[in-house]
Amino acid sequence: MAEPSTISPAPLLTDELDIVIPTIRNLDFLEMWRPFFQPYHLIIVQDGDPSKTIKVPEGFDYELYNRNDINRILGPKSSCISFKDSACRCFGYMVSKKKYIYTIDDDCFVAKDPSGKDINALEQHIKNLLCPSTPFFFNTLYDPYRAGADFVRGYPFSLREGVPTAVSHGLWLNIPDYDAPTQLVKPLERNTRYVDAIMTIPKGTLFPMCGMNLAFNRELIGPAMYFGLMGDGQPIGRYDDMWAGWCTKVICDHLGLGVKTGLPYIWHSKASNPFVNLKKEYKGIYWQEELIPFFQSVTLPKDCTSVQKCYIEISKQVKAKLGKVDDYFNKLADAMVTWIEAWDELNPSGAKSAELSNGASK
Amino acid sequence: MAEPSTISPAPLLTDELDIVIPTIRNLDFLEMWRPFFQPYHLIIVQDGDPSKTIKVPEGFDYELYNRNDINRILGPKSSCISFKDSACRCFGYMVSKKKYIYTIDDDCFVAKDPSGKDINALEQHIKNLLCPSTPFFFNTLYDPYRAGADFVRGYPFSLREGVPTAVSHGLWLNIPDYDAPTQLVKPLERNTRYVDAIMTIPKGTLFPMCGMNLAFNRELIGPAMYFGLMGDGQPIGRYDDMWAGWCTKVICDHLGLGVKTGLPYIWHSKASNPFVNLKKEYKGIYWQEELIPFFQSVTLPKDCTSVQKCYIEISKQVKAKLGKVDDYFNKLADAMVTWIEAWDELNPSGAKSAELSNGASK
Repeated sequence: MAEPSTISPAPLLTDELDIVIPTIRNLDFLEMWRPFFQPYHLIIVQDGDPSKTIKVPEGFDYELYNRNDINRILGPKSSCISFKDSACRCFGYMVSKKKYIYTIDDDCFVAKDPSGKDINALEQHIKNLLCPSTPFFFNTLYDPYRAGADFVRGYPFSLREGVPTAVSHGLWLNIPDYDAPTQLVKPLERNTRYVDAIMTIPKGTLFPMCGMNLAFNRELIGPAMYFGLMGDGQPIGRYDDMWAGWCTKVICDHLGLGVKTGLPYIWHSKASNPFVNLKKEYKGIYWQEELIPFFQSVTLPKDCTSVQKCYIEISKQVKAKLGKVDDYFNKLADAMVTWIEAWDELNPSGAKSAELSNGASK
Repeated sequence: MAEPSTISPAPLLTDELDIVIPTIRNLDFLEMWRPFFQPYHLIIVQDGDPSKTIKVPEGFDYELYNRNDINRILGPKSSCISFKDSACRCFGYMVSKKKYIYTIDDDCFVAKDPSGKDINALEQHIKNLLCPSTPFFFNTLYDPYRAGADFVRGYPFSLREGVPTAVSHGLWLNIPDYDAPTQLVKPLERNTRYVDAIMTIPKGTLFPMCGMNLAFNRELIGPAMYFGLMGDGQPIGRYDDMWAGWCTKVICDHLGLGVKTGLPYIWHSKASNPFVNLKKEYKGIYWQEELIPFFQSVTLPKDCTSVQKCYIEISKQVKAKLGKVDDYFNKLADAMVTWIEAWDELNPSGAKSAELSNGASK
C-alpha cells in the first residue's frame, strides 16, 4: 500500500497555517524550503537590533516584526516577550490569525528520507495534526492511523477514535538537540538514525519539547505556547521551548488533547557553541530537577475548561511552589499572566472559542 | 560510530538464558534460527495430545514437557496451567532455572533488517534487557543508551541512570498482531515498516504485550508472567499475553522496573484464522473495556516489595472488582494464587532473592 506522503497533491491548509521564524540574520535558508514553504504565509520575528534589515528571499509572502513593532503593538505588555533569545518567536503565535502554526529555526534545512527523497516536513506535520492522538493506551505499532498500521490486538475498542492532536513535535537529523554538558562530552555525535515512526506521548508523561521543528493547533493549545522569559536581562536561556512543552503537556493531558512526536525530520546544520550554551543553561540544569517534579504533580481543577484558565492556574502554582526556588519564577509567573492578557487582547474571539471547543475536560 | 549489533562476537548469556517455545508440532522452524539459538538451552512446552511426538531438529539442547509432565510436576496445582492454548508456555518460565527468558512462537522466522541482513532477535533482546530503561520521562530520540543517541536537552540529569529493564517486547514484520475484527476488516494488511527504535513504555501507561517475541528478566519479574486461564474449558483465548502484560506493567511501575518495546523484529509467517480467533476473543473484547480501567487504577501498597506480594495483591483486587464482571475472574484470581504457590515451590530461593533485590519501591 502506498504511503499517502508519496502522492503529495496540492499543498495542504495554505490558508490556515502560518510559518513562524525567529531570526537575527538574512533568511537565505528559505531558498532550500521554497518548494514547500512558498505557498504559505510567513511571520518573521526579528530578534536583536531592530535597525538591522533582514533580507527575505523574493517570492515569499511574509510579515516581519522587530522589537519596535512588538513594543508598539503590545505596549507595556511587551515585557512578556523575550529579547535577544529565540523565545521571542511566541510573539508570532500571538499575532497570527490562523488555526495552525509551524515554527522552524533558521539553521534547519531540508532532510532526506532513507530513499534519498527530500522530506516535506511541513506536510508531515499537517498530517500529524489532522489525525488523532492516542494518549490513553500505548500502541506497539506506533501511530495506528498511518497507512499500513492499525491498533494491535488488545487495544481497547472504546479508545480507537483517539483525541484531537494539538501538537506535532518533529525531530532532527545531523546535529542532535543536546544540552551543553552532552555537547561538550560528545562534540562529534551526529544523529544519523532515521526512525520511521510517529507516536503519541502518553497521558501523564512529560517530554522535552524542542522548538526547532514544531507545529501546533493554535485554536486548541495556542495560549499555552508561551516561551517564557529568556535571554537579555534573564538568568537563563535555552529553556524557552522546554517551559512551553511542560505547560502544554500538562494542559493537553487535562483537556484531553494529544501530543505527537517523531516524523518529520529536518536537517539541523549547526551545533551552537557549548560554552555559550553552558552559561545560558546552568541554572536551568539544576532548576529543572525541581521543575519536573512540579509539573509531574500539577493538577488542574475541573473548572479549568479553557487553555487560558489552565494557564493562569499554572501561573498561580508556579508562584506558590517555585517562587521559593528563585525569585525568577515569581517574575515568570507574572509574565505568564501578562502573556494571556496580551493573547486575549489580540485574539478577542479566540478567548471564547477556545473555551467552547475545549469544553470536554477530564 | 559503528552499532555494536554489527560486531556480534560470542553469543551473550548462553548460560543465563532459556528459550521457551510452546508448540503442537515438529519444530522445523528452529532450522532457520539455528545460528542464533543453538548455543542456548530450549524449554519446549508441548501443548495438546501428550502422546504425540514432537520432533526437534538435531543439535539443539532442550528439555520438553507435555501435559503429563506438567501434571506430574505440579500435581493439583497444574490446574493453573492452560491446556490447548499457547498460554501453557508460562510453565516453561516456572521450571527454568535461568535469569533470563526468551519466548517465541513456532510460526516466527528470522526477519531481515533494511540492509538485508538477518536480524539476530535474541541478541537484541539481551541488549535491551542489559541496558536501563527510562520510565519517568520521555526521551524524544528514543533509547538514550543506544550508540549514536543520548538524552536530549531538557532531560533531567537525575533520571539519566535509568532503572533496571525487566521486559523487552519485540515486534513483528509481515503479519501484524491484530485482533479478529481487524483481521477480518484488513485481511491483506502486512507490516512492512521497519521502525529502527527501542523505547521505554512510560510509567503509568499500559500496553498490549504480545507473547510472540518477548524476553524478560526472570529474577526481576518472572512471577508476574502468568499467562492466565485460556483455551480448553475456559471462556476466552488470545488474552493470555495481554493479561500477563497488564499485570507485569503495573508491577514494574510499582517496583521501579522498566519495560522496553520496539526492536527486534521477527518475521511472523502465518495469520491465524480470524473466525476461530473471533470465537476465542469475543468475550475478551468486551471484558477488556472493564479490565483496562481496572488496571489503570490498581494501586499497590508500599509493603508489596516483591513481585509475588504484588501479584497476590492484584489477585485480591481482581476478585473484589472483576468478579462481578464474570465468574471467570474469580477462577482466574484463584489460579493467580495457585500460580504463585507453584512458582515458589519450584523456585524456593527465588522467592527470597526477588524480595531482597527488589526492595526499592516507590
